Amino acid sequence: MKYYRLIDGCESRLAAAGTNTVYDLTSARSNVQSFRDLVQAAVAVGEDIDAVAERMVSNAEQIDLSEQIIDVPVNAEEIWAAGVTYRVSEEARQSESEMPDVYQQVYDGDRPEIFFKATPSRTVGPGSAVGVRSDSGWDVPEPELAAVLYDGDIVGYTIGNDVSSRSIEGENPLYLPQAKVYDRCCSIGPCIASPETVGDPHDLSISMTIDRDGETVFEGETETSKMVTECEELAAAYTRSNPTPELAVLLTGTSIVPEDEFTLTEGDEVGIEIEGIGTLQNGVTTV
Amino acid sequence: MKYYRLIDGCESRLAAAGTNTVYDLTSARSNVQSFRDLVQAAVAVGEDIDAVAERMVSNAEQIDLSEQIIDVPVNAEEIWAAGVTYRVSEEARQSESEMPDVYQQVYDGDRPEIFFKATPSRTVGPGSAVGVRSDSGWDVPEPELAAVLYDGDIVGYTIGNDVSSRSIEGENPLYLPQAKVYDRCCSIGPCIASPETVGDPHDLSISMTIDRDGETVFEGETETSKMVTECEELAAAYTRSNPTPELAVLLTGTSIVPEDEFTLTEGDEVGIEIEGIGTLQNGVTTV
Amino acid sequence: MKYYRLIDGCESRLAAAGTNTVYDLTSARSNVQSFRDLVQAAVAVGEDIDAVAERMVSNAEQIDLSEQIIDVPVNAEEIWAAGVTYRVSEEARQSESEMPDVYQQVYDGDRPEIFFKATPSRTVGPGSAVGVRSDSGWDVPEPELAAVLYDGDIVGYTIGNDVSSRSIEGENPLYLPQAKVYDRCCSIGPCIASPETVGDPHDLSISMTIDRDGETVFEGETETSKMVTECEELAAAYTRSNPTPELAVLLTGTSIVPEDEFTLTEGDEVGIEIEGIGTLQNGVTTV
Amino acid sequence: MKYYRLIDGCESRLAAAGTNTVYDLTSARSNVQSFRDLVQAAVAVGEDIDAVAERMVSNAEQIDLSEQIIDVPVNAEEIWAAGVTYRVSEEARQSESEMPDVYQQVYDGDRPEIFFKATPSRTVGPGSAVGVRSDSGWDVPEPELAAVLYDGDIVGYTIGNDVSSRSIEGENPLYLPQAKVYDRCCSIGPCIASPETVGDPHDLSISMTIDRDGETVFEGETETSKMVTECEELAAAYTRSNPTPELAVLLTGTSIVPEDEFTLTEGDEVGIEIEGIGTLQNGVTTV
Repeated sequence: MKYYRLIDGCESRLAAAGTNTVYDLTSARSNVQSFRDLVQAAVAVGEDIDAVAERMVSNAEQIDLSEQIIDVPVNAEEIWAAGVTYRVSEEARQSESEMPDVYQQVYDGDRPEIFFKATPSRTVGPGSAVGVRSDSGWDVPEPELAAVLYDGDIVGYTIGNDVSSRSIEGENPLYLPQAKVYDRCCSIGPCIASPETVGDPHDLSISMTIDRDGETVFEGETETSKMVTECEELAAAYTRSNPTPELAVLLTGTSIVPEDEFTLTEGDEVGIEIEGIGTLQNGVTTV
Repeated sequence: MKYYRLIDGCESRLAAAGTNTVYDLTSARSNVQSFRDLVQAAVAVGEDIDAVAERMVSNAEQIDLSEQIIDVPVNAEEIWAAGVTYRVSEEARQSESEMPDVYQQVYDGDRPEIFFKATPSRTVGPGSAVGVRSDSGWDVPEPELAAVLYDGDIVGYTIGNDVSSRSIEGENPLYLPQAKVYDRCCSIGPCIASPETVGDPHDLSISMTIDRDGETVFEGETETSKMVTECEELAAAYTRSNPTPELAVLLTGTSIVPEDEFTLTEGDEVGIEIEGIGTLQNGVTTV
Repeated sequence: MKYYRLIDGCESRLAAAGTNTVYDLTSARSNVQSFRDLVQAAVAVGEDIDAVAERMVSNAEQIDLSEQIIDVPVNAEEIWAAGVTYRVSEEARQSESEMPDVYQQVYDGDRPEIFFKATPSRTVGPGSAVGVRSDSGWDVPEPELAAVLYDGDIVGYTIGNDVSSRSIEGENPLYLPQAKVYDRCCSIGPCIASPETVGDPHDLSISMTIDRDGETVFEGETETSKMVTECEELAAAYTRSNPTPELAVLLTGTSIVPEDEFTLTEGDEVGIEIEGIGTLQNGVTTV
Repeated sequence: MKYYRLIDGCESRLAAAGTNTVYDLTSARSNVQSFRDLVQAAVAVGEDIDAVAERMVSNAEQIDLSEQIIDVPVNAEEIWAAGVTYRVSEEARQSESEMPDVYQQVYDGDRPEIFFKATPSRTVGPGSAVGVRSDSGWDVPEPELAAVLYDGDIVGYTIGNDVSSRSIEGENPLYLPQAKVYDRCCSIGPCIASPETVGDPHDLSISMTIDRDGETVFEGETETSKMVTECEELAAAYTRSNPTPELAVLLTGTSIVPEDEFTLTEGDEVGIEIEGIGTLQNGVTTV
């Protein structure tokens, strides 16, 4: 199943999409209004989320997703991200810094690179604009498979856009937090796909398209099979010596990197598609 | 099963007692810390609460209830109560007012007498003192079977003490709310027994004992089989044209009434026992 | 000053109206978004609310109230009401019950009649419909001056509509809570006037108009100078032996009573005007 | 004034210390239970916090701080930190990495180095143990002047301990977030001193003492006059293109660095004293 958060006035509803039909789970159980509610119930009864959702389907109304307003799929207390998880990413980054060694060391080492990426106040959902800093001149989206964690365990997958200032990051690696953590620096969505729906998370195609003024100015694709650090290993690195919140999202790194000449511009439209999950679409605004 | 709320520092835990053993359900599922959490999960998956609790038992630690501090079993948003639900109650009340007709009319009529009894701020749990108003001279406990409602449906039973000022109530029926709703006017506990554990709620013995200075100054007993208005009917009256909160408690009326000479006094100890649920014990303080 | 709660998407703003101009106080101090925020600040610094609001006015934007959506002026944790506070009310009620004595006794006695009236879930604001119970055949609005209490002290005044089922109340005084506490049983608004703005709360004219199908079907008026129990005395009765929430509203009783032939009907429009506060307008719906 | 958060059962109280006496401000105004409450009131009325506190003193009880349990002084939504803000810090760090250039560049550049340091779940108060990661072998405290920000503006100062793993940080600058953000990685306290109490924040002496098994194993001191980037500049960097929460804490960097042979060990006692604020004392535990 894929789980969508729908905006319903000032409240939210949870929808579940199967192969052909979409159900308003909140219509079946009024106390299940969010992915958090679903996971809490699933954890409480010791089942997986799809099994719990299946119990609701027979009482739930079918809806047409195209008539709904879709929100951030989960209000995770914190979002972390990883870097240097794909071989290509490592190579691409060599050109943006004079210190290729640090990336190579991560690639060769036992410790993944993970970092605090975003709070809910800095995260947008499908259809909202991600931000490029007004004090940055070179900005890129980073399309990533994102794991959704409940008490540190992976309970689903979504798509993440780890928007980054390459000019600030490239100026000095000590500026990385400022290149990564700022207003509208992160987008996730459009839904959370259950582990059963995604299948092997390391066998998914990822593609990104950037449109500007009606024209496609970037296209790229990769596969999660090229990840050198797997999701479970990243989650383990995140939860080690670290108090994890009830719900967290962990972006697992990128390997689609636009050429150095490219920078995001206000008004761009970024679409990220991951096999088995869907497409996350966001505009771009200056912050 | 019987469900207890345990005080754990500034947090709470949920315990479930079977026939011989008591389990700390929070040790099995850290996200189930209260009866509310348990019912929310049960409603979400469409099972009864005992079935959900049974899933946790194998992973849960056994505990000794006698070493625990037991709190109000459920933080219900509101508590309502009913009157004139037993024949004996009706008769007893005839002497306290010059208007016997009004009680007779309720007894004969289709509409139960129900009223707003308490907020969480006015409710105490086992071991805490219930209140007698400082401006009242004649005060009585009212031992009652209490239904616990989730979204208006009965999901369990507990014991309630609908402490009342008979002097204020007796002065004028328009003063009933002041005789009923005040500081520490209500006690519930010690646990919530599931419907399966209670069996037929209209076939339970109820007894009350009041001790003062080490001596028993009142003893009385009755049976819920003498109820003339059943729990489901009272719940229906409560939810009719009325927006019910997620969790509510409905006290179902009393038929154990101390003789007119008796009044509660600061320092008294009131024990109410209901078959299949347990004993609710409270001291008395002036408020 | 008069304080209005404005709906701003899924948030709220606080506006203050002086003699000629209306200010958006939230535009002056973004952390003052409600009457609660204003009173908390005023209590913290030991000033009255108008003095605190005056400090904000120079930085605040002027707005046009007619372009705003006005909400319930305060989310009070509980609303209580009083009865038999006007001589006329007492007389009018004699005909609806066979027990005129009980009203006379309240009128002559030291203890006011006060009762739990509504929770936030049962309260509507200006422009929303109040409810008449589907199991009631005779329903009336009760226009009342309402005191707003912070920690038990009067900090302002608003208008209240204590909608009541006279058929249920008249059937049996023990049914009073069901006649009084139900879905949409209470309306308050449109604003909170400070004590300085209201002046003497016992020297205000109150009028009510009920329109049906474009025609006025009831008009009545009275004056708060006819109150036999004053606001401070009612507040004292409310807070005696009673744990009061941070914010409460206390309706002070009515003396405008439509003739016995009149009953509220779905679609009616009820307007209540109190001198120095404004007009509270509500439709009527069956609940 | 200096503001302390006191633990009172499961609630908190706010105390204010003047030159000779300590007042329980919550005893004067029961709705002021935290530094947040005080600042909200001060911002609402447009005064500074000391002026608001002064209004309460005459009604407040005097207390003896030594009999109180002192908690984290403020539950800031997020804590950020800065690096390379003192000349000595820059020099000291040259030895721990093979990339001295990056620190020199920050020192010479216009953009301060700031980074996300801690959430409330990772922050401890006075008397609680700070953490050293179990996967780290070289750990140090970093004693720092900390600015408290309300809506991005400095409203007070406290002491911060930016505990860091130098082995993880030294291994690779990309691991900095893991060296900085983990369980118990941050301590703040013991109080918040108002700007008026602190005076010039860039003219304060800072000293740190580390005791082990009853002996002092490290002593060091510096002065905030050696800061090359001032607090206001760091706050400006933090709030630029960044949505700041209502309350934040910004650690302003360190210049007391134990010799390379030194590492924190479980059981150590770290005391950090800043002139005009006080002493922040913490034990050390492995996490």
